[in-house]
Amino acid sequence: MLGIELERESEQPLKRQIYQKLKEQIMSGKLKSNDALPSTRELSKDLGISRNTVGEAYEMLIAEGFVINRQGSATRVAEGVYMEQSDLFALCKTSLPKRMLKADFRTGRPDLRQFPQFLWQQFLHKASVEMPIELYGYTGPQGLPALREEIAAWLFRSRGLTVNSEDIFITAGATHALHLLADLLCMNSKKVLIEDPCHSGMLKTFLNKGCPIEPIPVDSQGMRTQCLPDGRDACAVYVTPSHQFPLGGILPAARRTALVHYARENGLYIIEDDYDSEFRFCGEPIAPLYAMDQQRVIYVGTFSKSLFPALRIGYVILPKPLHRQWSDMRTHADVQNPPFEQAAMVEFLRTRKLDRHVQKMRRIYGQRRQELMEALKEAFGSGWTSYGDAAGLHIAIDFPGKCFDEGFRKGCLQNGIDITPVEHHCIEKGRHQGKLLMGYGHLEPEEIRKSVLLLRDYIESAAGTVR
Amino acid sequence: MLGIELERESEQPLKRQIYQKLKEQIMSGKLKSNDALPSTRELSKDLGISRNTVGEAYEMLIAEGFVINRQGSATRVAEGVYMEQSDLFALCKTSLPKRMLKADFRTGRPDLRQFPQFLWQQFLHKASVEMPIELYGYTGPQGLPALREEIAAWLFRSRGLTVNSEDIFITAGATHALHLLADLLCMNSKKVLIEDPCHSGMLKTFLNKGCPIEPIPVDSQGMRTQCLPDGRDACAVYVTPSHQFPLGGILPAARRTALVHYARENGLYIIEDDYDSEFRFCGEPIAPLYAMDQQRVIYVGTFSKSLFPALRIGYVILPKPLHRQWSDMRTHADVQNPPFEQAAMVEFLRTRKLDRHVQKMRRIYGQRRQELMEALKEAFGSGWTSYGDAAGLHIAIDFPGKCFDEGFRKGCLQNGIDITPVEHHCIEKGRHQGKLLMGYGHLEPEEIRKSVLLLRDYIESAAGTVR
Repeated sequence: MLGIELERESEQPLKRQIYQKLKEQIMSGKLKSNDALPSTRELSKDLGISRNTVGEAYEMLIAEGFVINRQGSATRVAEGVYMEQSDLFALCKTSLPKRMLKADFRTGRPDLRQFPQFLWQQFLHKASVEMPIELYGYTGPQGLPALREEIAAWLFRSRGLTVNSEDIFITAGATHALHLLADLLCMNSKKVLIEDPCHSGMLKTFLNKGCPIEPIPVDSQGMRTQCLPDGRDACAVYVTPSHQFPLGGILPAARRTALVHYARENGLYIIEDDYDSEFRFCGEPIAPLYAMDQQRVIYVGTFSKSLFPALRIGYVILPKPLHRQWSDMRTHADVQNPPFEQAAMVEFLRTRKLDRHVQKMRRIYGQRRQELMEALKEAFGSGWTSYGDAAGLHIAIDFPGKCFDEGFRKGCLQNGIDITPVEHHCIEKGRHQGKLLMGYGHLEPEEIRKSVLLLRDYIESAAGTVR
Repeated sequence: MLGIELERESEQPLKRQIYQKLKEQIMSGKLKSNDALPSTRELSKDLGISRNTVGEAYEMLIAEGFVINRQGSATRVAEGVYMEQSDLFALCKTSLPKRMLKADFRTGRPDLRQFPQFLWQQFLHKASVEMPIELYGYTGPQGLPALREEIAAWLFRSRGLTVNSEDIFITAGATHALHLLADLLCMNSKKVLIEDPCHSGMLKTFLNKGCPIEPIPVDSQGMRTQCLPDGRDACAVYVTPSHQFPLGGILPAARRTALVHYARENGLYIIEDDYDSEFRFCGEPIAPLYAMDQQRVIYVGTFSKSLFPALRIGYVILPKPLHRQWSDMRTHADVQNPPFEQAAMVEFLRTRKLDRHVQKMRRIYGQRRQELMEALKEAFGSGWTSYGDAAGLHIAIDFPGKCFDEGFRKGCLQNGIDITPVEHHCIEKGRHQGKLLMGYGHLEPEEIRKSVLLLRDYIESAAGTVR
């Protein structure tokens, strides 16, 4: 009867199987409007199952309006529920070919092998065990007060910043902060003034929001503030003043002052992205722009580089007039961060484990930078210069006369070398063609040496195509 | 000399204190352009600290361009670094008055007291201990494959849905899914057609994105699909077909069919928000619209209601043509979810603890719904009707002839009663004035009875103002 076959081993309950098969027959037109279904007694006998089970399946069909049950009459198929099937689309697995990297110069990758995983597990466990049940509910868009206080203390210890924890808003990282700031600040088609070159991912974050962009050129000292346009059409300036990405410059005090004046005069905001300034090798981290003006500068910080990228905890420090709107925006965007990582971070900061980890990694990254410089000298002699100041997990290298483009990048990838020309991060092309970006933070010394040799071999073999 | 006073007990290192005080003097104009700083030897003697410490402070000022050091000459203040101080804004604490709720009828609150916290802690710990170090890095925008597979299996067990785990994209909850879908689908000022009434938060999510909205009226069976406008100006339809929020209707099969046809004809997408259909008291959860057309329906699911809101894990099931663009969007919005909750969720699903928890909560919520109905009968006699079908954590109650507006809501709040009139969730006002929304899932039976009596007393006392 009705050709229903049940799978008794299936995880799906029998009633659901019956319901499903009847529904398929209705939707496919096999059972037509006004057709009567067999009585529950008949069908249950036929299938050798309890009448209740069939009854429950019928109830489901009734609840959803596929069939109609009138007192004293048979259960019948409803009107207007036939539907032609849509094409079955190919379920082809879009499995990407796994890349076999022999030399991985990607930027922004901290060395996860050095991360104190065990400690983190302990803190996460402690945090979850001690977490009051209220924190399993909605706790608001700003983030845990204890975390905001620990971040304020850390900013004081590490950068000499005095910040009120009430001005700190936790985010799911720096990208997330920019994503929300784009919604918050970009209105009336006003432009975001952005360093050029600038991290292509961050640029994409603004472009995806439909923000109009105006590139401001960068030299070895960061944004050339003398090139800032008439500010009336702009809503924000995006800068990385402590360690310009990708060229590494430190914005000098005179340009900082000019930039703050520019923001004040035009009533616009400076977005300061301080993505890795804790890893400065000679001397202390650079003081943030934020210290110069807490009303015009929005500071964006992250723990992706100092701890690990999958943590998804960053923060913004916001001027008071933006607090309410930010909270509204975040509530209706992704509501809040989960509490567990936040609470574990509180422990990580409170016990000063972050300070110690950063100190250790600064030493290690410094040695690796040294190693990279020596490997470059051995491989390329003196025909290159490093660009910008020495901080972070990557460096820009200039090979004068060379021209590294997307073609070069692809050629490298095909040979197992993942390296990015600075041009990739340029908005206006053609100004930084001789420069390559080399991420080294995640590489052991021997990996660095091996990778540089592979790069040299590829550049030599491709000499015909690399001008 | 220079009036520098050091705090030896401070957490801030001495070099940073010196740097900070000199910088303040420079920025405030006390030290002017070209002024010479004392030599490191002089200043160190004066302060009674090592010369190295002073040297390091000077290095910081040099690195940031506040002072200039020319070989064989004194260290001097740079040009253009004076800046007038911006007004110190009040640091007044914007501490909100704590609400003392006597009756809390808010919607969308699962009972956290029933959540198996200990189990969750165990799973979270296991997940973090077993997590391979690669998952601390960037792992892509789609979410952990194991979680996507467990969700596919859960959708099959609980709703009879056959889903390919490759079509599932993890999000930070349902709001987050809508936030990203708004960016993905709303283009060229095309409209989102939205149920009216509809959850005001979800509406805000679309409005914050600048999406034009067209309300489609809702009756006791959900969206009145016969009211759908010419579809050429629309990009998406937002519906809650399994349990309409807030009125509780189940969209009948004929309307479902019409809706899918409409989407196919106009080449637009249906966003199906299935926020709480696992909590259906009579019979099985309703089959999702998604089952009818996997090319036109985008299914949005969440664990905020079935587990706990702060988990921040939800998912979308996306048609293939949207995969690439979604991934690009997510990568540049907030990158990815953290891995720990995802991995703990895998355990929660794999061990069927979610199934058991949902089953238990369905029983509890069902009893509470019964309790609420009885309490309403006792308090208000027969002068009310419950609206829509019986599922979820809230119910809409119609008091014919009454008029509950924002004024009523505020009056309630002032009396310690948090309750929302359906009108609050209406786009076009004036159609549902007699209805109140009562969230009961998080309330114990005695809390329900007490709260209903408080509500009755308030309605009676405010009879003059409640028309």
